[in-house]
Amino acid sequence: MNVYCAIDLGGTKMNIGMMTREGKVLEHIKMPTFVEKGPEQAIKRMKDAIYELLEKLSLKKENIKGIGIGSPGPLDSEKGIIIRSANLKGWKNVEIVKSLSEDFKDMPIKLENDGNAATLGEYLFGAGKGSKNFVYITVSTGVGGGAIIDGKLQKGGNSNAFEVGHTIIDINGPKCNCGNYGCLEAYASGTAMGRIAREKLLEGRESIISKMAGENIVRAEHVFEAAKEGDSLALEIIQKEGYYLGIGLYNIIALYNPEKISIGGGVSNGLDYFYERMMKTINNMSLKPNIEICKIEKANREDCGLVGAGALAFYSE
Amino acid sequence: MNVYCAIDLGGTKMNIGMMTREGKVLEHIKMPTFVEKGPEQAIKRMKDAIYELLEKLSLKKENIKGIGIGSPGPLDSEKGIIIRSANLKGWKNVEIVKSLSEDFKDMPIKLENDGNAATLGEYLFGAGKGSKNFVYITVSTGVGGGAIIDGKLQKGGNSNAFEVGHTIIDINGPKCNCGNYGCLEAYASGTAMGRIAREKLLEGRESIISKMAGENIVRAEHVFEAAKEGDSLALEIIQKEGYYLGIGLYNIIALYNPEKISIGGGVSNGLDYFYERMMKTINNMSLKPNIEICKIEKANREDCGLVGAGALAFYSE
Repeated sequence: MNVYCAIDLGGTKMNIGMMTREGKVLEHIKMPTFVEKGPEQAIKRMKDAIYELLEKLSLKKENIKGIGIGSPGPLDSEKGIIIRSANLKGWKNVEIVKSLSEDFKDMPIKLENDGNAATLGEYLFGAGKGSKNFVYITVSTGVGGGAIIDGKLQKGGNSNAFEVGHTIIDINGPKCNCGNYGCLEAYASGTAMGRIAREKLLEGRESIISKMAGENIVRAEHVFEAAKEGDSLALEIIQKEGYYLGIGLYNIIALYNPEKISIGGGVSNGLDYFYERMMKTINNMSLKPNIEICKIEKANREDCGLVGAGALAFYSE
Repeated sequence: MNVYCAIDLGGTKMNIGMMTREGKVLEHIKMPTFVEKGPEQAIKRMKDAIYELLEKLSLKKENIKGIGIGSPGPLDSEKGIIIRSANLKGWKNVEIVKSLSEDFKDMPIKLENDGNAATLGEYLFGAGKGSKNFVYITVSTGVGGGAIIDGKLQKGGNSNAFEVGHTIIDINGPKCNCGNYGCLEAYASGTAMGRIAREKLLEGRESIISKMAGENIVRAEHVFEAAKEGDSLALEIIQKEGYYLGIGLYNIIALYNPEKISIGGGVSNGLDYFYERMMKTINNMSLKPNIEICKIEKANREDCGLVGAGALAFYSE
């Protein structure tokens, strides 16, 4: 039996799985990354997890036909190096491919940024299936994603393409975590929704959002909870989300002219609340031929980050 | 001898040429489009021009191995139809490929939007040569361009990709000709430079720009002429141009992660005046790995619209 090993490396958790070429996950292990303990321990535990998965599945090393890693970037994917990342604090020039290849020889080991990996997963096994020009957008803490262009993953010159969250939609906008002003992420991420809610509450707006948060800091999920109860501030913030995300998607449609866009990430769970506003923004702004061919829907493969990472191992360019 | 026929169709002029596969233009004829007289007369004169070129070059129809047309869009390039265009007022669903094929049978006839065609020309025969991920930006009346991704022209789902001029960089910005607000084109085009100059002059700013314009409406070229004389308002407007175009290019670098960007169009003739400001904006904002691999320079093939159109006839996807 041929299997592919998928590693979805994140700032908080890492997910390691064994999958088939058809995108079926046979087994997987999720565990904390412990970023602060450094990359060596994380890679060591990745290896342990791979051996554990092999045992669980009664397979041998030789059954693994390749390993794919999705990681926060920027990366040097040619050399298999994680250069550094805001989400992997303290990690610098981590030669992850080389380290893994010490244990797992004679198989391709591929490294790609997590947005690109997830895009590939959603394209091959999810909502993107069958389209030739496809965009995946994930909206959670940040805004990220990737693009398939004429059937191929857009990597860019050094695998750092499609940093959509950090495209500017308002040169006079609020400061983003990246240091720039008016990034899409500063408007349309879950983090931004939380920030906007906190600002409005500080201004004295009445709302049950604070009740939903309790002793926790107000976040996007509390806004959605309050919206379920009909809270007017919450509904207003969610409408804004639809508008801002609509602007971001309009820009993407103008540049990429895709046949399909799928939206994943935590905030997409509330898509029903802001889909209409988002689509109204996009429809009002877009060139007719561009929007006529473009379907926009919720992502349908929650584990696209994992299966996309695994697919890197056999995806031919 | 094998030649390719190139048609660069514009709202004011059309340029028809015969070229080699190496991008050498053997002969060409430039003439007014006379948009208001309708598409039939224009296509008739295109055909006449092709016969004239054949005669000039002592060639026969059989020597033409293909025809490529670059046209303002939106188009249906599969079906060879110009759907409509702001620059070809009154033209609707023009079956240009079908019309040309009545005279020129048994050869490929390809239609692509003008930005994409020019990009292909600059990529194959100009500054883009040798790069795998390349972006061409033209800054004149509008802002347009195209992208080469991993060696292939990005067309999008229906050849309307890379509408960079109409991506939003300021959701609260000035109204653009397209009806949206805060498009890059409303900030960084030659038209925008003229508008900004006129606004500043109306505010009573002292400047020799009006003298340069004389009885004509103030345009970007007058701003550049005044700048040559050290006019402070002109220099200020040109610095702004560098800043705005820098924002637009930053967004493109974040999304496309190209190895090279070349800038053409009328405004690029003044690139020396704003290159530093533009690069400062881009360098301050961009991810290091993205900007490190990206060279930005003036386009070096002024006729890229023509040779790119011709290349459509043999460019294999």
